[in-house]
Amino acid sequence: MVTSYHRRLDQACRERNSRLCVGIDPRLAMLPAEIRPGPGASLNEQARAYLTFAEAVLEAIEPHAAVVKPQSAFFEQLGHVGVQVFEEICLAAQDRGLLVIGDLKRGDIGSTAEAYAEAAFRDVGGRPLLDAVTVNPYLGSDGIRPFLETALERGGGVYVLCKTSNPSSTELQDLRIDGRLVHEHMADLIRDWGEGYPGTIGAVVGATHPDALGRLRTRLAGVELLIPGVGAQGAGMQDAAAGFDQQGAGALVNSSRGITFPWTTGTEAPPDWRDRIRTAAREARDDLRSALSER
Amino acid sequence: MVTSYHRRLDQACRERNSRLCVGIDPRLAMLPAEIRPGPGASLNEQARAYLTFAEAVLEAIEPHAAVVKPQSAFFEQLGHVGVQVFEEICLAAQDRGLLVIGDLKRGDIGSTAEAYAEAAFRDVGGRPLLDAVTVNPYLGSDGIRPFLETALERGGGVYVLCKTSNPSSTELQDLRIDGRLVHEHMADLIRDWGEGYPGTIGAVVGATHPDALGRLRTRLAGVELLIPGVGAQGAGMQDAAAGFDQQGAGALVNSSRGITFPWTTGTEAPPDWRDRIRTAAREARDDLRSALSER
Repeated sequence: MVTSYHRRLDQACRERNSRLCVGIDPRLAMLPAEIRPGPGASLNEQARAYLTFAEAVLEAIEPHAAVVKPQSAFFEQLGHVGVQVFEEICLAAQDRGLLVIGDLKRGDIGSTAEAYAEAAFRDVGGRPLLDAVTVNPYLGSDGIRPFLETALERGGGVYVLCKTSNPSSTELQDLRIDGRLVHEHMADLIRDWGEGYPGTIGAVVGATHPDALGRLRTRLAGVELLIPGVGAQGAGMQDAAAGFDQQGAGALVNSSRGITFPWTTGTEAPPDWRDRIRTAAREARDDLRSALSER
Repeated sequence: MVTSYHRRLDQACRERNSRLCVGIDPRLAMLPAEIRPGPGASLNEQARAYLTFAEAVLEAIEPHAAVVKPQSAFFEQLGHVGVQVFEEICLAAQDRGLLVIGDLKRGDIGSTAEAYAEAAFRDVGGRPLLDAVTVNPYLGSDGIRPFLETALERGGGVYVLCKTSNPSSTELQDLRIDGRLVHEHMADLIRDWGEGYPGTIGAVVGATHPDALGRLRTRLAGVELLIPGVGAQGAGMQDAAAGFDQQGAGALVNSSRGITFPWTTGTEAPPDWRDRIRTAAREARDDLRSALSER
């Protein structure tokens, strides 16, 4: 019997006394000069630079974060050599005892969803490539259950998009149907979908809508939240704290650029960039702890 | 000035007198015995078998279809070596004059969506890897515009999921808001999003809901439809015909398993499997032509 994702997550967070997730979203132009390849670099050289950067990030944040969330898009942009590096980063993070949420936001049906779930949780040297994934619910339960089946079997987690952190999330997610909003309806579906898959289900709810986050925390009892939107997107740890339960558990706060590029946008990374990343991770973890204890 | 996707699509369809799109969804267990690798085959051997099969499919269907739609999930399932083969198949299809819709259903925001769009339409030897992509609208316009921007620049197309062919599409897409259904609201958004991006926008509407397809054809004036659900999913060409305009244009019908695995599920492929695929493609094209002329 495998240990469930919820249990593994709780254990990892307790070990580090941290509910912080660090997003790994490498962008070529923002890499420190010492590892940034020159103009005209091959996709392979760019991918290797992403790996070098990600390994430095993992080393710097390891004491302060329990989970990392590499964003697949930035690796897919480099084609299959980027996907190879994405895989290497997932394994390197797990080697350090960090859990890995693959930010994939896949959404498809039936045997296609099964194939995506297999891609996410496939066995690599005796363990699943990813500990959890993000998925998109537009197609309904046909797109979610195959992920839950595979995840349950392998101790994985499935975070379903519910109320996302971006401004245009209103266009569909905030429509009103029979007295409740689409994202509230989605929260009820997510909670229902999770039944029968103990320790597996999660939901993505942005910190940029603190009122919605508090309401959804109540509505999504027993569902792990993944909370983006802190830092570059404008929300603070106080906003994110609304997504936690009374024990300060049940959620992760994700921060990406604010931790991995903690210098002014558009300027070169300072020579001590590794230390700056470590400090940013420690401060984010401490800010979150304070926000949770001050509630 | 690049030629728009809508124009390139019309040209490809006129050249072959066909509005058929063939989905390429390889499954290991369904491959003909002569190319199926044995148990214990490496991911690389499996990926090579997918390439061999896909090349045979391309050769067989080339006279009868204008467009192919490889499904990314089945290749991602094999990790980065699968993604490499996905790329090779796209290029092989374009070499035969076929347009390629990458069935990716990606959905993310801002610079992440830009990275996905770059992944889809990136330059490979002087042309974009894909001619068009499928995308998911759950996050609203923040997730769509970056695709439209890149597509417009490079003559690409963007098919947004509207009313999908699967049974559980009802759970979100058929909810009623202020007198219209969510998928009707989505259709209006898609039409609005397409303005300013001439020749670029499309929508995915399943043939399994023929009434909705007819209503959405009217609502989605100027939007190219991609119509799945024919064959294995139960709809016929008569159902799909409701998605075409009066001139028999404005849409593509996709068929996957019905063309690429046209033998009884669970049985071995017959020795003349290449001819069987060719015949299935020709018959599907002819059935669609008849359905359009009989309206």
